Amino acid sequence: MRLFRSNKVSKAKTPPPLKAILFDTFGTTVDWQSSMIAHAERLGEEKGINADWPGLIEAWRAQYQPAIKPVREGKRPWTGFDTLHREQLDKILPKFGAAQRLTPQDRDLLTQGWHFLDPWPDVVPALHRLKHNLILGPLSNGATRQMVDLARWGHLPWDIVFGADMFRTYKPDKKLYLGAAAFLSLDPVEILMVAAHNQDLEAAKSHGLKTCFVQRPTEDPKPTGAYDYVVDNFEHLAQALNPSNSS
Amino acid sequence: MRLFRSNKVSKAKTPPPLKAILFDTFGTTVDWQSSMIAHAERLGEEKGINADWPGLIEAWRAQYQPAIKPVREGKRPWTGFDTLHREQLDKILPKFGAAQRLTPQDRDLLTQGWHFLDPWPDVVPALHRLKHNLILGPLSNGATRQMVDLARWGHLPWDIVFGADMFRTYKPDKKLYLGAAAFLSLDPVEILMVAAHNQDLEAAKSHGLKTCFVQRPTEDPKPTGAYDYVVDNFEHLAQALNPSNSS
Repeated sequence: MRLFRSNKVSKAKTPPPLKAILFDTFGTTVDWQSSMIAHAERLGEEKGINADWPGLIEAWRAQYQPAIKPVREGKRPWTGFDTLHREQLDKILPKFGAAQRLTPQDRDLLTQGWHFLDPWPDVVPALHRLKHNLILGPLSNGATRQMVDLARWGHLPWDIVFGADMFRTYKPDKKLYLGAAAFLSLDPVEILMVAAHNQDLEAAKSHGLKTCFVQRPTEDPKPTGAYDYVVDNFEHLAQALNPSNSS
Repeated sequence: MRLFRSNKVSKAKTPPPLKAILFDTFGTTVDWQSSMIAHAERLGEEKGINADWPGLIEAWRAQYQPAIKPVREGKRPWTGFDTLHREQLDKILPKFGAAQRLTPQDRDLLTQGWHFLDPWPDVVPALHRLKHNLILGPLSNGATRQMVDLARWGHLPWDIVFGADMFRTYKPDKKLYLGAAAFLSLDPVEILMVAAHNQDLEAAKSHGLKTCFVQRPTEDPKPTGAYDYVVDNFEHLAQALNPSNSS
């Protein structure tokens, strides 16, 4: 049987070692764009509907921040991600011609597509490397069930999943960062937040978490703040955190 | 890319298919007794303390139900499992002679032992079989971090972990069963609760979950209610749920 040991107390000036990494999901860990376009195109083909599916997916995603804002600001009661996604789809469809012919059932199905998005190709191998000595999990504005579905679909080896419904608000509300730290019994400084979004990282940083900006083609083009790490993909992060453990 | 598909609507009289299994942890999934005795004996050896370690662990575990009761009943503010365990250790040590010489640090370390307990030998292979078509997770009175540590220690392939701190009360409070169902976006009847404790299963059943009693040498000697399944171990459950997929 392996020994269990608490870590030795660090010297006062040494920052405590990293214990966990939390990952933003949409755009950071999974490629929502190509996956959702594929889902929509397949549905369009089955239904014989010709439409600008890539444009529709782009417009749908653009509705995301405006949709969560009133909930985060308490102007709208707690509303989960699937419900918001479905509402926003109804809102944008009139702009996409024949796509309006999607029935309510088609729209439900397409909304479910957000639970089944492929991870970026670097993600799974890097997570397996990082998992050796760090607790890994998503900290997402998506729902808990969505995180479970995404993990099963993409074989993401999480130790824990955190969905926004566990906190009944959305990032960048501090409840998500500090609530996740509390569930992990960690100080925020022992946690690294990884995202392709400056807003997420600025918030994480302001609440004491370490930060890593990852460059993704569909997300914020560049880091606008001073973060602990800036990387091109998750493999680079695994390398930066543990250079001796190369793949 | 794999297709995503919602399940066909079941006929009115057919119960909906099972979508997830939630597992009680202590005694059901992990063998707290032999693991904690080993932790205590090792600590005793290191410290040169001779004591009835098996008796101490038994007495410690016996304090569990009395410790959580006032919290569940609202007579004591929310208090996590590690804190309760540590308090109860202080309470029982005077009855175990030389064991009283354990320092506060030793006691903290031994309390952490509850995060590092070996699964029963049937557990990991069976979970891998069950995971193919069902969402799996612990639903425990332990803390979320404890569930994470136990999973990493014992290689438990959970899709999600639920600790009592997510609900700020303890089983058999309905908040745990119905709260977990809500996070999974499932009806209770789509979830199977597995436990070696009648109290847990009776509560789960009363809130609409399916139930499975598993016989474990350290826990309730026999099922006292009418459950959907009664099995000797998790392999038997995997077999019962999917007889064609034998190991």
